[in-house]
Amino acid sequence: MSSVIGNKIKLSVFGESHGEAIGCVIDGLPCGIKLDFDEIKREMARRAPGNDKTATARRESDTPIVLSGVLNDRTTGAPLAMEIKNTNTRSGDYGNLMSVPRPSHSDYPAYIKYHGNNDVRGGGHFSGRLTAPIVFAGAVAKQILKEKGIVIGAHISRIGSACDDHFNKNTICEAELDAVTHKQFAVINDAVEAEMRACVEAARIKGDSVGGSIECAAVGLPVGLGGNMFDTIESRLSAALFGIPAVKGVQFGAGFGFAEMLGSEANDGYEIRNGRVALLSNNNGGVLGGMSSGAPVVFSVALKPTPSISIPQKSVNLQTMENETLVVKGRHDPCVVPRAVPVIEGITAVTLLDLMM
Amino acid sequence: MSSVIGNKIKLSVFGESHGEAIGCVIDGLPCGIKLDFDEIKREMARRAPGNDKTATARRESDTPIVLSGVLNDRTTGAPLAMEIKNTNTRSGDYGNLMSVPRPSHSDYPAYIKYHGNNDVRGGGHFSGRLTAPIVFAGAVAKQILKEKGIVIGAHISRIGSACDDHFNKNTICEAELDAVTHKQFAVINDAVEAEMRACVEAARIKGDSVGGSIECAAVGLPVGLGGNMFDTIESRLSAALFGIPAVKGVQFGAGFGFAEMLGSEANDGYEIRNGRVALLSNNNGGVLGGMSSGAPVVFSVALKPTPSISIPQKSVNLQTMENETLVVKGRHDPCVVPRAVPVIEGITAVTLLDLMM
Amino acid sequence: MSSVIGNKIKLSVFGESHGEAIGCVIDGLPCGIKLDFDEIKREMARRAPGNDKTATARRESDTPIVLSGVLNDRTTGAPLAMEIKNTNTRSGDYGNLMSVPRPSHSDYPAYIKYHGNNDVRGGGHFSGRLTAPIVFAGAVAKQILKEKGIVIGAHISRIGSACDDHFNKNTICEAELDAVTHKQFAVINDAVEAEMRACVEAARIKGDSVGGSIECAAVGLPVGLGGNMFDTIESRLSAALFGIPAVKGVQFGAGFGFAEMLGSEANDGYEIRNGRVALLSNNNGGVLGGMSSGAPVVFSVALKPTPSISIPQKSVNLQTMENETLVVKGRHDPCVVPRAVPVIEGITAVTLLDLMM
Amino acid sequence: MSSVIGNKIKLSVFGESHGEAIGCVIDGLPCGIKLDFDEIKREMARRAPGNDKTATARRESDTPIVLSGVLNDRTTGAPLAMEIKNTNTRSGDYGNLMSVPRPSHSDYPAYIKYHGNNDVRGGGHFSGRLTAPIVFAGAVAKQILKEKGIVIGAHISRIGSACDDHFNKNTICEAELDAVTHKQFAVINDAVEAEMRACVEAARIKGDSVGGSIECAAVGLPVGLGGNMFDTIESRLSAALFGIPAVKGVQFGAGFGFAEMLGSEANDGYEIRNGRVALLSNNNGGVLGGMSSGAPVVFSVALKPTPSISIPQKSVNLQTMENETLVVKGRHDPCVVPRAVPVIEGITAVTLLDLMM
Repeated sequence: MSSVIGNKIKLSVFGESHGEAIGCVIDGLPCGIKLDFDEIKREMARRAPGNDKTATARRESDTPIVLSGVLNDRTTGAPLAMEIKNTNTRSGDYGNLMSVPRPSHSDYPAYIKYHGNNDVRGGGHFSGRLTAPIVFAGAVAKQILKEKGIVIGAHISRIGSACDDHFNKNTICEAELDAVTHKQFAVINDAVEAEMRACVEAARIKGDSVGGSIECAAVGLPVGLGGNMFDTIESRLSAALFGIPAVKGVQFGAGFGFAEMLGSEANDGYEIRNGRVALLSNNNGGVLGGMSSGAPVVFSVALKPTPSISIPQKSVNLQTMENETLVVKGRHDPCVVPRAVPVIEGITAVTLLDLMM
Repeated sequence: MSSVIGNKIKLSVFGESHGEAIGCVIDGLPCGIKLDFDEIKREMARRAPGNDKTATARRESDTPIVLSGVLNDRTTGAPLAMEIKNTNTRSGDYGNLMSVPRPSHSDYPAYIKYHGNNDVRGGGHFSGRLTAPIVFAGAVAKQILKEKGIVIGAHISRIGSACDDHFNKNTICEAELDAVTHKQFAVINDAVEAEMRACVEAARIKGDSVGGSIECAAVGLPVGLGGNMFDTIESRLSAALFGIPAVKGVQFGAGFGFAEMLGSEANDGYEIRNGRVALLSNNNGGVLGGMSSGAPVVFSVALKPTPSISIPQKSVNLQTMENETLVVKGRHDPCVVPRAVPVIEGITAVTLLDLMM
Repeated sequence: MSSVIGNKIKLSVFGESHGEAIGCVIDGLPCGIKLDFDEIKREMARRAPGNDKTATARRESDTPIVLSGVLNDRTTGAPLAMEIKNTNTRSGDYGNLMSVPRPSHSDYPAYIKYHGNNDVRGGGHFSGRLTAPIVFAGAVAKQILKEKGIVIGAHISRIGSACDDHFNKNTICEAELDAVTHKQFAVINDAVEAEMRACVEAARIKGDSVGGSIECAAVGLPVGLGGNMFDTIESRLSAALFGIPAVKGVQFGAGFGFAEMLGSEANDGYEIRNGRVALLSNNNGGVLGGMSSGAPVVFSVALKPTPSISIPQKSVNLQTMENETLVVKGRHDPCVVPRAVPVIEGITAVTLLDLMM
Repeated sequence: MSSVIGNKIKLSVFGESHGEAIGCVIDGLPCGIKLDFDEIKREMARRAPGNDKTATARRESDTPIVLSGVLNDRTTGAPLAMEIKNTNTRSGDYGNLMSVPRPSHSDYPAYIKYHGNNDVRGGGHFSGRLTAPIVFAGAVAKQILKEKGIVIGAHISRIGSACDDHFNKNTICEAELDAVTHKQFAVINDAVEAEMRACVEAARIKGDSVGGSIECAAVGLPVGLGGNMFDTIESRLSAALFGIPAVKGVQFGAGFGFAEMLGSEANDGYEIRNGRVALLSNNNGGVLGGMSSGAPVVFSVALKPTPSISIPQKSVNLQTMENETLVVKGRHDPCVVPRAVPVIEGITAVTLLDLMM
């Protein structure tokens, strides 16, 4: 039972959607790092709702208040604690969730596990809102990684039937990552934006939702990063990524595509290029034997459609133990994928920084 | 840098392919558990090579010697240590790997990370042979889980172009899992065995290899198992699964299929069945909010083709920093998927037991 | 580099003496526990300064604000986050500490470790003020332990030359522990209070400080609590206790007195008493082989005199690298022992709760 | 329930006194370290019994067999596994321990905790014999620390009424530590050896045992080593030290002596010496705010008398629940202190190496 992750950098996330505040403590940060709080705010704005029809109409203030660990904009080496006060909540919308669990949401197992004691308002600790502190921590981690030459970026690779181009796994570079992460709508091929938006809008109009996938890359990692067997880049990143609500799949490089490949197609050969070892392809997504190969680390995550839809669904009443049709009220994202992009980047940054320490 | 995994059950794996011995220490096992060593041997035989053309011609003895933690076939509560002596190694086959890294293998990043000090013979600590202790630990964990009504089973879902049927995610039961795990060739639909074998044989004849995927299920888990955010079933299982050599993707339930789905298609509704809450479908693979939903936990892993192929490959000489064509000698599995089935089950069992403690 | 402790109950402490706030996150608490916030306030008041001449004249508000993890006074099972806003600070008093380290304080090694980036105002993250969140966490843990029949209490066993009576290690009971922990000045023998106060007052008048020791007991633990070798009651408690500023020694039962004893004197025999196994003595302080023996767990901690004294001391200027006489200004406790009593109890409660989970 | 310790260097100890083997796995060692196995053997011989009347007449072979992690005498970076086969055991001696627990030994709580499943022969996993792998791991760690200029040494500071001189806390140096650790009987003042031996012999003749204490020092640590709050040198060392059987107290520097001191006596002033910051005294035992101050790290541990004495003792029969007089048979050390010296050094070395990584 733990909302804490990391070895040397320990991220402890707290809060409930409609409680007093959400936030995090980041333990183990190096001292003396100058933080650019405008950049942190920019990252948090990428995740914030209310700017766009693809997202919920709720407006969250999402203003992070630093409680400790920073003095004169520099890290002090003490734990960096941050809180975001909760405002603008409409608890009444969630009144019936205690007894009638929303399909595909945490409601039912949480009800059994917590015997009805968990805060169900807005999803409580399971709310997607808890990803805001992760974006904050990620924004901090990114700035420290940037000083080491490591840059992370992600884009929406798919929403429903609409697919973006893929990163070129072997040549993706800092400039391309910067470009896509500064877009309002994070796709490589801008032509696909309209199609994706249409896909989300179609779902929204029907009171439905739609899933998608995100592709993420990290460039600049030193060769050999990552530990033995269970402390590898893949083990550590996947554990962190599956901590993000809605993530249901993680694959590195060719991932599930490997199942159809021959070794002669899949293997990434080497050559000497400019006096250095270089890879001829990057089907392995930059990770060999759990360690970085020097090629960009590239992986994809699958995100399921938002479970909260306003279409009537079959559920049960846990009090009466009778079948019941559920109509979920409240304001919900018809598609979480666009807002999840900085979250995926953020948890990736925190994890890679931990491995780098 | 860690070959240790787990919180309450800590599995520490040691050994190098051509060293004195490989083995493991399992710390935190409950005491008084009667172990069936014939069953453990049966599990280890499922992974052992040399029985089948799909696998390497090497014969490994793979006889586990228990060093501590068991008295009169019962666990004592002290750490259970086990070793397997290494025999039948042909170190000469690997003489040139130090300077010319095998594509898609750990060789190159390991060379950089360990500055040439790692034992490269047979892959050293990165060898697939290190999965034998995991199967042992998994066989122990399975017996403890069985007493709690939890059963785990896996099958080869794909090799190259040949696909097995899928588990019915919502109805898969202990009897079906037992059946498939007792087959010589672990597929649900026996008709597909010939096709898969042909796929492997075709690769073997060309000196090539082929990838695949494995589907695994666990039934009998209590509702609500799994912790908050980063200590969930999905985070814990994926971290463990990516510790297995060749695993490049992990997805739960519909996994990457969710990207194309609407919420109304994806959501798993509830109904009252025989006075209990039951799910109408199991696209979430038995995990909601990171916790078990009561439906079977079902996930797939992607395995890349064995990197070691005898077809000439482009590589480099790390001493001379010149391009070099590599022809990998030695005996290698043209496809690791069949032998990986009990490994996937084993690490799943160890991880679920840890969560259950 | 970690202000996080615990396995199943993870306590993450944050804050700096003169920063925005101090606080903690307690991850892994069981859900549904009714918390008595008046009792928590009473515990925090025991540690709070400003009531007594033995302590600093500073007044800290020390009002804990719960941010998450509690709903309607019950734990929700989500991380319990708490903050205490910092007020009433006089930063000017600490202006010269950056360059001239206070003897016996963390200043010098912190200066080297953090390269001058750490917040030195009031001791920053090293301040004794950071024990307030520990008392809060301890007060929560005590209430959960109480439901399991476990009660913890401590008293001032020594200040300078003045010594209190000792707990009877074998018969100390809940009522006696409750009695001493509800006293304004926590001694068993009230007659010693005046002597101890005189000792502190004598130091205070001279601008000096004085050390002491605290004896702590926990009753009601089940026999066999505590793990193997490195996860024992003694290992876990000592690690936690040495995390408290000023603690320089920890001993269980006879502790250093064992060095002079024969086995025949030291051994704690057994007898059957009222049909149950009972100990004839408790020199081992309730811990055998790292596990609870059923007798009360009894241990002592040594606390050094407050390093901050106003008597001129020999120090150095880290900028000029010249010798310099230091006169510490500011308001400081001439003796931290009385205020440390609830802190020792608190960290003990958190640690035992973690072992009990 | 864990015989595993460490963060970056994870030491996993396994084995039972009369089982197949005892040993350890050391995970996370740096690669490429040349190990001097003669020196390792010398360290293990310091702990081995049978050489001396102060110790048991048993002879243990104690020959460590390296199973993995070393190639051509250099560490490979993979886990270093080691086993010592058990020989020369006389299990019959322990036949009655299951039902009649030895006072002050782990027998009774272990019986309750393990429900009679633990291996009681020779103490099983609680046996002092399990310190042999710790000495091995310590010998490895010492060699790595030595390359970093860090040297550890300990001596018998007290046995019963006989006391050795103390280390000069502020001036103790590598040469003095080397000298005392190469003595057959590790005391600073050789004149005290006869008195200590007489003390042990007197106990032995009566079938009794005697306690003592050990003082240990580490020189050469960088200033600022050790983490925040709960990851400090004191927390980490004490947790490790209390994992050693018989240890009942740990104090740093003046330790419990601080209770009687004034701040003006206790504080360690600074001066500039040869252009560097130096301490005028070292009452803090080289640790300030949990971090190394640059002065030697000096601490003492108290060891209780061996619980196994042949003098009749009051115990109970756990089967019949009646009082019973126990006469412990078997060969036991009348005093474990001399043999514990390299164990204390060893676990100190492992812990400091972990902090240094």
